[in-house]
Amino acid sequence: MKTSTLLTDLYQLTMLQGYFDHDMYETAVFEFFVRDLDKRNFLLSVGLEQVLYFLQDLRFSSEDIDWLRKTALFKDEFLDYLRQFRFSGDVYAMPEGTVFFKNEPVIQICAPIPEAQLVETRLINILHYQILVASKAVRMRFAAPGKQFVDFGLRRAHAAEAGLFAARASYIAGFAGTSTVLAGKIYGIPIFGTMAHSFVQAHEKEEEAFIHFAESMPQNVVLLIDTYDPIKAVHKIIKMAPSLQKRGIKIRGIRIDSGDLVALSKDIRKLLDENGLGNVRIITSGNLDEYVIKKLYSSNAPIDSFGVGTKMVTSNDMPYLNCAYKLIEYKGKPRKKRSQGKETWPGQKQVYRFYKEDKMSYDMMSLKDEPVAQGKPLLKRYMSKGQIIEKLPSIHEIRDYVSAQLDELPNFLKDLEKTEEYPVLISEGLKKCSEELNRWIDEAE
Amino acid sequence: MKTSTLLTDLYQLTMLQGYFDHDMYETAVFEFFVRDLDKRNFLLSVGLEQVLYFLQDLRFSSEDIDWLRKTALFKDEFLDYLRQFRFSGDVYAMPEGTVFFKNEPVIQICAPIPEAQLVETRLINILHYQILVASKAVRMRFAAPGKQFVDFGLRRAHAAEAGLFAARASYIAGFAGTSTVLAGKIYGIPIFGTMAHSFVQAHEKEEEAFIHFAESMPQNVVLLIDTYDPIKAVHKIIKMAPSLQKRGIKIRGIRIDSGDLVALSKDIRKLLDENGLGNVRIITSGNLDEYVIKKLYSSNAPIDSFGVGTKMVTSNDMPYLNCAYKLIEYKGKPRKKRSQGKETWPGQKQVYRFYKEDKMSYDMMSLKDEPVAQGKPLLKRYMSKGQIIEKLPSIHEIRDYVSAQLDELPNFLKDLEKTEEYPVLISEGLKKCSEELNRWIDEAE
Repeated sequence: MKTSTLLTDLYQLTMLQGYFDHDMYETAVFEFFVRDLDKRNFLLSVGLEQVLYFLQDLRFSSEDIDWLRKTALFKDEFLDYLRQFRFSGDVYAMPEGTVFFKNEPVIQICAPIPEAQLVETRLINILHYQILVASKAVRMRFAAPGKQFVDFGLRRAHAAEAGLFAARASYIAGFAGTSTVLAGKIYGIPIFGTMAHSFVQAHEKEEEAFIHFAESMPQNVVLLIDTYDPIKAVHKIIKMAPSLQKRGIKIRGIRIDSGDLVALSKDIRKLLDENGLGNVRIITSGNLDEYVIKKLYSSNAPIDSFGVGTKMVTSNDMPYLNCAYKLIEYKGKPRKKRSQGKETWPGQKQVYRFYKEDKMSYDMMSLKDEPVAQGKPLLKRYMSKGQIIEKLPSIHEIRDYVSAQLDELPNFLKDLEKTEEYPVLISEGLKKCSEELNRWIDEAE
Repeated sequence: MKTSTLLTDLYQLTMLQGYFDHDMYETAVFEFFVRDLDKRNFLLSVGLEQVLYFLQDLRFSSEDIDWLRKTALFKDEFLDYLRQFRFSGDVYAMPEGTVFFKNEPVIQICAPIPEAQLVETRLINILHYQILVASKAVRMRFAAPGKQFVDFGLRRAHAAEAGLFAARASYIAGFAGTSTVLAGKIYGIPIFGTMAHSFVQAHEKEEEAFIHFAESMPQNVVLLIDTYDPIKAVHKIIKMAPSLQKRGIKIRGIRIDSGDLVALSKDIRKLLDENGLGNVRIITSGNLDEYVIKKLYSSNAPIDSFGVGTKMVTSNDMPYLNCAYKLIEYKGKPRKKRSQGKETWPGQKQVYRFYKEDKMSYDMMSLKDEPVAQGKPLLKRYMSKGQIIEKLPSIHEIRDYVSAQLDELPNFLKDLEKTEEYPVLISEGLKKCSEELNRWIDEAE
């Protein structure tokens, strides 16, 4: 979604006025990272594509500038400067879909300080939410391996773009698709959907609603059975199946959206199987999350597919990340912040990943140009002088990359609970750089 | 924000194909309501304006229809019908900003069933989030009466539109403004903002950063003091204040974003007061919510203004509402759903509010045309035949209306905790209608 460049915090613009007035245009390096993982064992870096296009297309429209003039906060020469403002920097990042851990830089922006500064708000806004959703969605796969998951969350996502991003992020995390039609159009994600309770309620009889739906969507007959009584509804379906079959219409599935899903799915599976409807899939929905799904899976509930909405798209058990975008180098010199509880690692970095018997073993954060033997470097350059220089992977390729990495995860990272922490080591060079900087700040104070 | 009509669930379109095939165009009434208040004592109805414009402007573009054709899910005649699809119904709603309670209809849509059906997803998507944020934001006011609050949440809001809606909803709930520039432009909300840590870090010395900022924004000097050591920073400010003063630049405030806010604000207030800077305001930010704010307020922390971000815009303690949009009448006949735990009240309704000594005393839900003496009816018609027929209030008028209602709230509703529940009575007519409908469904089964 293209958004106005004014989708930013006012302080970015007041600081830009300050940089402009004092001719501060030297290169700054900012890093986006997550300070702690909180309830997650790992996170997935999702949103890079949107960040890169945001940077490449960044400009102020005349309308934006006219409006800024009316605020009377800015000087005319500064507003003229904004007219030709572009992002001209370099971007280093982990490939989209990469598993990452606390304090590891996911994206690095190297640009004249006003440019690197201005982009902070929207960059965080894009990354924070997609990381949050992808990292929640992937947990569903661990809760019920081999099952199918579909995103049903648009209505309770936090407004429009969240609904779209949630569809994208959950697909990347391994979902089969989404109910959000526009996400199908924009991102090429498979779309799913059949009927709501209102369709049943609008008919005098439930069976009439089922037949009407089957006639209208003969290739996509999934019937919602819990508007009144789910077991009675299944009996109606069993009764109507032969005549639909004769007309060439096959019932593909039933959906249950409420009640005791374990007992219901078992009873319904049995009923369907005993009546020649062994191929009818059972789909459930209704306030599901990874914990409920795990319980259903452990109870051997014969559920084929899960429609997951609200709790995934709001990441309800952890609705935000403690993430930041911090200046770590300016004019070639490392910088750090020492605010209580929010200290940062200075200097531009690289992250190396080490493996043991095809499983991830530990990571090491080092200074960018520090030699680190054998590890696999995770950050690479995606943008040079404001232009994207890498062919970006398709959404399907990103999804495959996530799946491949899940095979490399040590088992304790697949737990829904936290047991141990994945080791992220700090290189000698990085430690030394941080200590030296502390001394420099102490002297300057 | 104008969004594509494809920002909807696929099942809306598959159901529409069903209604189209079976000539079902009679009037349906759907109601949007919240099933339970969970951690809130009351909610604020926010988002009506966006819903009304969404309905009035609803249409499928040629591009939308071409894309739908490619999915091969729909018949050509149906896609032709979508070309001229408009919303032609009536809308009844509580005025924007109204205090409401569980099961009370906030908006009623009365339209031919395909129209009333299609709009479900985006209608919920707009209302759900704005209600959530406004109802969270208003709690800050109860936590620290008379203080100033500013929305700082854009970066961690769930993507672009959530950031804008959060600015709007929190302003309506009584915030003074927002840091989100675009919300200033779109909604006319006052915008706030000065500097981040990076501005300080980009300078060799903190005092240089402060002076640069003061020179560039002489009318708006609020200095962020916790990049390194907040108390040392205040001493620097005290030292530079006289010379800035001579140049006509007044320091308006300092902001603290980390650390022990009670101790720091007390020490800093004292330092500032003792050094002739009694007018410098103290602004705090950094992961604040109503509970932290209440603690600060109870500790007499001399804080003038709170920048509230992440926890408000994600409504972190309650990141979603148990809300629904349900068919409650079709062809002039009441309908209800009986799914376990999700039963609905049938028939088009009115909500009456009763007062005692200028305080809200109880509400009563009745059938729309049932005579109810003395109560104040809350729902009125905003749209007729697809056109808005009421002059909509400005955002400032909505905000004033919220403030006026807060004066009418009984005290127990202003608690941050839940103590007692506000009474919402059900009229005799509504009870009878529901019982009759249950009998009818039982017979039909």
